Amino acid sequence: MQSQSRTTAPVSRFFEQTLTRYQKLTYKALLGLVPAGGPSYLYDLVSVYPRRAGKGLRAALCLAICKALGGSEQQTLNSAAAIELFHTAFLIHDDIQDGSERRRGGPTLHQTYGVGIGVNVGNAANLMAMQRLIANRSRLGALTTWRIMAETEEMLRQSLEGQAIELGWIRDNVVELATKDYLRMCLKKTSWYSFIYPLRVGAIIAKGADPEPLDYVRFGWYLGAAFQIQDDILNLTGSYHLYGKEIAGDLWEGKRTLMLLHLLHHSSPRQRDAIKRFLSKPRKERTGAEVKWLLDLMVRADSINFARDKSQQLAGAAFLEALTALRGVPDSEAKRFILEMVLYVVRRNR
Amino acid sequence: MQSQSRTTAPVSRFFEQTLTRYQKLTYKALLGLVPAGGPSYLYDLVSVYPRRAGKGLRAALCLAICKALGGSEQQTLNSAAAIELFHTAFLIHDDIQDGSERRRGGPTLHQTYGVGIGVNVGNAANLMAMQRLIANRSRLGALTTWRIMAETEEMLRQSLEGQAIELGWIRDNVVELATKDYLRMCLKKTSWYSFIYPLRVGAIIAKGADPEPLDYVRFGWYLGAAFQIQDDILNLTGSYHLYGKEIAGDLWEGKRTLMLLHLLHHSSPRQRDAIKRFLSKPRKERTGAEVKWLLDLMVRADSINFARDKSQQLAGAAFLEALTALRGVPDSEAKRFILEMVLYVVRRNR
Repeated sequence: MQSQSRTTAPVSRFFEQTLTRYQKLTYKALLGLVPAGGPSYLYDLVSVYPRRAGKGLRAALCLAICKALGGSEQQTLNSAAAIELFHTAFLIHDDIQDGSERRRGGPTLHQTYGVGIGVNVGNAANLMAMQRLIANRSRLGALTTWRIMAETEEMLRQSLEGQAIELGWIRDNVVELATKDYLRMCLKKTSWYSFIYPLRVGAIIAKGADPEPLDYVRFGWYLGAAFQIQDDILNLTGSYHLYGKEIAGDLWEGKRTLMLLHLLHHSSPRQRDAIKRFLSKPRKERTGAEVKWLLDLMVRADSINFARDKSQQLAGAAFLEALTALRGVPDSEAKRFILEMVLYVVRRNR
Repeated sequence: MQSQSRTTAPVSRFFEQTLTRYQKLTYKALLGLVPAGGPSYLYDLVSVYPRRAGKGLRAALCLAICKALGGSEQQTLNSAAAIELFHTAFLIHDDIQDGSERRRGGPTLHQTYGVGIGVNVGNAANLMAMQRLIANRSRLGALTTWRIMAETEEMLRQSLEGQAIELGWIRDNVVELATKDYLRMCLKKTSWYSFIYPLRVGAIIAKGADPEPLDYVRFGWYLGAAFQIQDDILNLTGSYHLYGKEIAGDLWEGKRTLMLLHLLHHSSPRQRDAIKRFLSKPRKERTGAEVKWLLDLMVRADSINFARDKSQQLAGAAFLEALTALRGVPDSEAKRFILEMVLYVVRRNR
């Protein structure tokens, strides 16, 4: 039903190949950095999610922007690995916070090892990312390293605030939410660490400590929001085999997706109350029949198509922002990769 | 029965007053730094444990060593606040990892707000600590700030490895443990962040970027081990009113304390098997009768007195190490405070 994207053009072969090359480069560096010694249930588990072959999108964006602006991949690799380590930490803690069961085609870390070990391994991934940023000093110099540290602090702050907003909505069973609330949450929870931070770090490395104004906030924001909405659509309509998370997990978790907000806006007061009652229950008390009922309501209200349209609009806006941000930057494969990433985030099926 | 310390000399009035002064100084700085705005369930909850009036021991040690070595409290206050923020983060995550119910006389954070919010608030406390260390730059200069960062990375690494060791013992139901295994776990889990790190950071601030060798590892190790054993004794024998955690919580949690190791070593094979069976159960399946049985076994095997003796011996060794570390340092109130802290950790009742 909703599972076919209405845009038919596939992601280019060039984009796929370049992404794979960046992913291999980053993951080789990342996995080579995981200490072989140390106690069990720590470093050994930091590499569980990376070994399940993530897309490496965030690291690729950092590597590409640096290259496009005249820097080299070797200069950026360390920070690219740090970005994927922060992402790993975020996924591990996020899976605990959302009570998720599946990640990248396997059980979530805390499902297998318990919440206690999960929290610790997430912290270890964060620490390993910090170690990479400290190690930048010998290659990039004190000033550039320090600017990246300041960016990192801002990124962590935005991400934690984004998580707090989403967790607060669920805890307080907030349903009076507009699209702009959702987009603000996306900016903080997803866009900052996934797109704005990799772009700005790559640009800082390319430009050194040059105090030229850096602004990729709007580009990264719109791109991140398009990405998140597509992610939420895949969660409802995707193939588990490709997507790797439990299908409709977001409904089990009561996540405030754009589809849910659309449905609430287009429900009768009575239906709205019924949805609110469902959302007020703890996850364990929700049933498969209720989840199916909610999904059917979304299909009937055309909420998924609404979200897909929004995601496409945001990708369009992101594309215009990318052209603005990169005007004056000479054409290159790296620049092409960044522009094609905008298409990728809304056309991907995993 | 075991609840009276066999040493009768109280902690000195001078020590108590100085600790209170340092605690007030640090907490005023710390609470003044917690942002008033931002989303709910984030910064507002970072200050929950600090507002329940911790001892502020770690910050006090950092302030005192810096003063004793010729530095000022104003220089150190920022790092002292960071130390208490790291401690707050550690407590929040540790309570989740251990499944603890009470902390400083109130419910643990995750008991009230859920594990998801707890993980996020712990991360926020860690970030706020990092922000303090970044802010050191304008006052202490780039080089000193950088040395403190390197110390911080080491401290976080040690603490995570210590947690992993303890969590691994519980997960794998390890019982073949000697005193030296316990002491190594203490070094990493407790001593490093609670004593070694505050000492070294205070010394770095006093000495600037002077590359003089810094070594407070043995002093901090023994002090931390004495502290941890006393903490574990209070957990079994203390007054909830003073101690603020659920009494015998460690038995419910299956924690590998020195008392438990002693008991296992002095049990018949049959009794040992029974204890191992108890330890193999998830916390929720343990009963009050079983916890009482285990506590009775410890009392009969004299395990608590064994641990108390060990704690006193370690305090004695810490005192000798402190004298060595501080030889050549002129007498001062700050130096006296540090030496008296050794007595305090084994005589405290909270």
